[in-house]
Amino acid sequence: MSDLTDRLVQGLPDGAVVVDPDVTAAYRHDMAGFCAAGQPAAVVFPETVEQVRHVLRTATELRVPVVPQGARTGLSGAANAVDGCVVLSLVKLNRILEIDPVNRIAVVEPGVVNAELSRAVEELGLSYPPDPSSWESCTIGGNIGTGAGGLCCVKYGVTSEYVLGLDVVLADGRLLFTGRRTAKGVAGYDLTRLFVGSEGTLGVVVRAVLSLRPAPAPQLALAAEFPSADTAGAAVCEVMARGLTPSLMELMDAVSVRAVNELGRMGLPESTQALLLVAFDGPDRVAELARVARLCREAGATEVVPAEDEAESDLLLAARRMALPALDRLGTTMIDDVAVPRSRLAEMLNGVAVIAERHGLTIGVVSHAGDGNTHPIVIFDASDEEETARAQRSFDEIMALGLELGGTITGEHGVGLLKRDWLARELGPVALDLQRQLKAVFDPLGILNPGKMI
Amino acid sequence: MSDLTDRLVQGLPDGAVVVDPDVTAAYRHDMAGFCAAGQPAAVVFPETVEQVRHVLRTATELRVPVVPQGARTGLSGAANAVDGCVVLSLVKLNRILEIDPVNRIAVVEPGVVNAELSRAVEELGLSYPPDPSSWESCTIGGNIGTGAGGLCCVKYGVTSEYVLGLDVVLADGRLLFTGRRTAKGVAGYDLTRLFVGSEGTLGVVVRAVLSLRPAPAPQLALAAEFPSADTAGAAVCEVMARGLTPSLMELMDAVSVRAVNELGRMGLPESTQALLLVAFDGPDRVAELARVARLCREAGATEVVPAEDEAESDLLLAARRMALPALDRLGTTMIDDVAVPRSRLAEMLNGVAVIAERHGLTIGVVSHAGDGNTHPIVIFDASDEEETARAQRSFDEIMALGLELGGTITGEHGVGLLKRDWLARELGPVALDLQRQLKAVFDPLGILNPGKMI
Repeated sequence: MSDLTDRLVQGLPDGAVVVDPDVTAAYRHDMAGFCAAGQPAAVVFPETVEQVRHVLRTATELRVPVVPQGARTGLSGAANAVDGCVVLSLVKLNRILEIDPVNRIAVVEPGVVNAELSRAVEELGLSYPPDPSSWESCTIGGNIGTGAGGLCCVKYGVTSEYVLGLDVVLADGRLLFTGRRTAKGVAGYDLTRLFVGSEGTLGVVVRAVLSLRPAPAPQLALAAEFPSADTAGAAVCEVMARGLTPSLMELMDAVSVRAVNELGRMGLPESTQALLLVAFDGPDRVAELARVARLCREAGATEVVPAEDEAESDLLLAARRMALPALDRLGTTMIDDVAVPRSRLAEMLNGVAVIAERHGLTIGVVSHAGDGNTHPIVIFDASDEEETARAQRSFDEIMALGLELGGTITGEHGVGLLKRDWLARELGPVALDLQRQLKAVFDPLGILNPGKMI
Repeated sequence: MSDLTDRLVQGLPDGAVVVDPDVTAAYRHDMAGFCAAGQPAAVVFPETVEQVRHVLRTATELRVPVVPQGARTGLSGAANAVDGCVVLSLVKLNRILEIDPVNRIAVVEPGVVNAELSRAVEELGLSYPPDPSSWESCTIGGNIGTGAGGLCCVKYGVTSEYVLGLDVVLADGRLLFTGRRTAKGVAGYDLTRLFVGSEGTLGVVVRAVLSLRPAPAPQLALAAEFPSADTAGAAVCEVMARGLTPSLMELMDAVSVRAVNELGRMGLPESTQALLLVAFDGPDRVAELARVARLCREAGATEVVPAEDEAESDLLLAARRMALPALDRLGTTMIDDVAVPRSRLAEMLNGVAVIAERHGLTIGVVSHAGDGNTHPIVIFDASDEEETARAQRSFDEIMALGLELGGTITGEHGVGLLKRDWLARELGPVALDLQRQLKAVFDPLGILNPGKMI
């Protein structure tokens, strides 16, 4: 038994330190492609805050890197192991400690699965809006680490809007409390939001006070078929410019529509170049949907199918939920996550089509259109080295295009390993310098998720 | 002419450097009581970002403190001068650079007055929600510096929710860009939110990308009279627990109701112990207001007056807007800003009454009840030293009570000088240590608004 393992087991329950390489191999990486993953020295499963502190204190003393992990559903390699590290899995800190309908907060441990929390608060007439695609398996800790988004964001915003306070174990094992349990508060610098999206590079979140909302009414949706990205993009702009705020506004391109048809026999119109899905959940949803239907037709939609009820709405939206698995069947996929001002959405989509053509690749695009957040999905044959290189180049060109259009290299998936080199390009030298210094304040030895993000 | 003035004028327009002590005296402090204010060496009025950079570069070279100022409507002394400093007034960087209805953003300079922006976006069917009481004169830069709130927050949140990106001049004159123009983005640590509420201690905001919302419908309000803080507090809890989200939920205590009657002949019920004002602005507002009326009666309201229309609603809400000026007439006032979980609101109000009685003082309380954010206003005779000391003690006891109830010493006014000693008590040693280190990253020489906040 190494010194590291020896020390770790002293403060952890039986079986909570795993060193068998056959087992630890499963904890080497998240769901991102193209990211290096090392071999951990150990994977640990603490069950209490005190045990997390023990792990961090040990790591600090022995100068061993620590890689925090949730459900490893991330798409940027932020949870990938580095050689000789301790993988700190938070999945056993998984209790919902409190749900308080009067103060509209939940207090949870980081290993709570998003869907579990969503269902628990729903029973009390509340909702926790952030809904990444992986919501059935991803954890709240991972959502906080990446600053996760989802389909709800056009109306309800992202994770960062829902985190009021955090308990964080620092690199040296100290316990930090940030934020508050109150609706408002401005006492001191906002450390809470600094941790949201910090990908485990500043500390380990061990408890979170989350803000909740009243559960919305069921969504009523429509689907609109457009002959081009330009017409669909114009419809999106019109809807937003008219002061309408849908609870969902998603755009699927021709590639993803066809993929979904193949997988699910959904009977979506094969001729479509862009399929827009729009939903409302407010008391005026019938009237709002009718207005959107009219705006879509005016913008050039060739067909508009409004759902009559909730069940029909669910059917329409199922197509969108199916897009990623459907595209995954076509080859190895590399999902990008570039957000642009929504007024530039059509330019982004047209630009991606040009990139796909230039590299002779299939790139399907699903977008949270209301947010201007596109997910171009590059499809390629991973056994073909040359094609893989083209895929990588097109992935980079998509990010460059996003920046050119006034956007960001990542709307909700994070930087991790995948986009680390691009972060510098987006931030510029002054911001990068400050970010590096901030990292050093929280983690002077550089043991927390080293090599990720910055 | 001193070396400092000499250097400053070299990069600023004619008349932009003021050293006449009769004039600079007006720039010594904001609207907080009980806070020391020094004598500035100069007050400068740059008109461009480049001129702000010149001021900061000069200050860094000469090691002169810089105190950024907006409209000086702050209530914590955060904008107070220190001896020998350069007061950096941002009021001449006051252009609205862009309003974009499709992307729902505005780009503004820091000296833009809140009301000016609000009116400009309203003309385009949009709204910029944060609405501090001083909205007719306070600036967006000041709002960002303090993390300002207002009456809208129960439904629409605080300033921090509306700041997407910032241009910031750092202490050494470097220009930093943070954040984005897109709806979503998670590239790197969230420096934007770190600046919101940082009271000019980390850098000088020279441009802000703000998020806008569609303009809401006019509010429909009701007033409900309660025989006690307990019954009023119970009504607040019931409203929130039932999933209702008012656009405004304000509570006035007996002292403030009487003061308003005296000032405005409003004819509010003199016997009331607590007057709750609730408004809705959504499409269901009539039905929602009727539900709240019923909940208020069930909780023990002795009278409930729902407005028939917008004009009547305005009349009801005018009473609330009048509360601060009305209390100001009763003596010198010291306004506190303690937020507690809304479920503890009644305990907070009862506790303040006990403190008032113990010290033989009048303390009126207006509250953003939906947020649990109370503003106890201590009234005293500033010419009476002993009474002033009692006022100070009661002010402190109110903060201690807030912390005891799980709250924060400041919901929206900030820390400044007024609550600096209390910040340490709220944060604890670990957070305080990190906050100090963060400050040092941005301002290694300690020239930016020294002595404020931390």
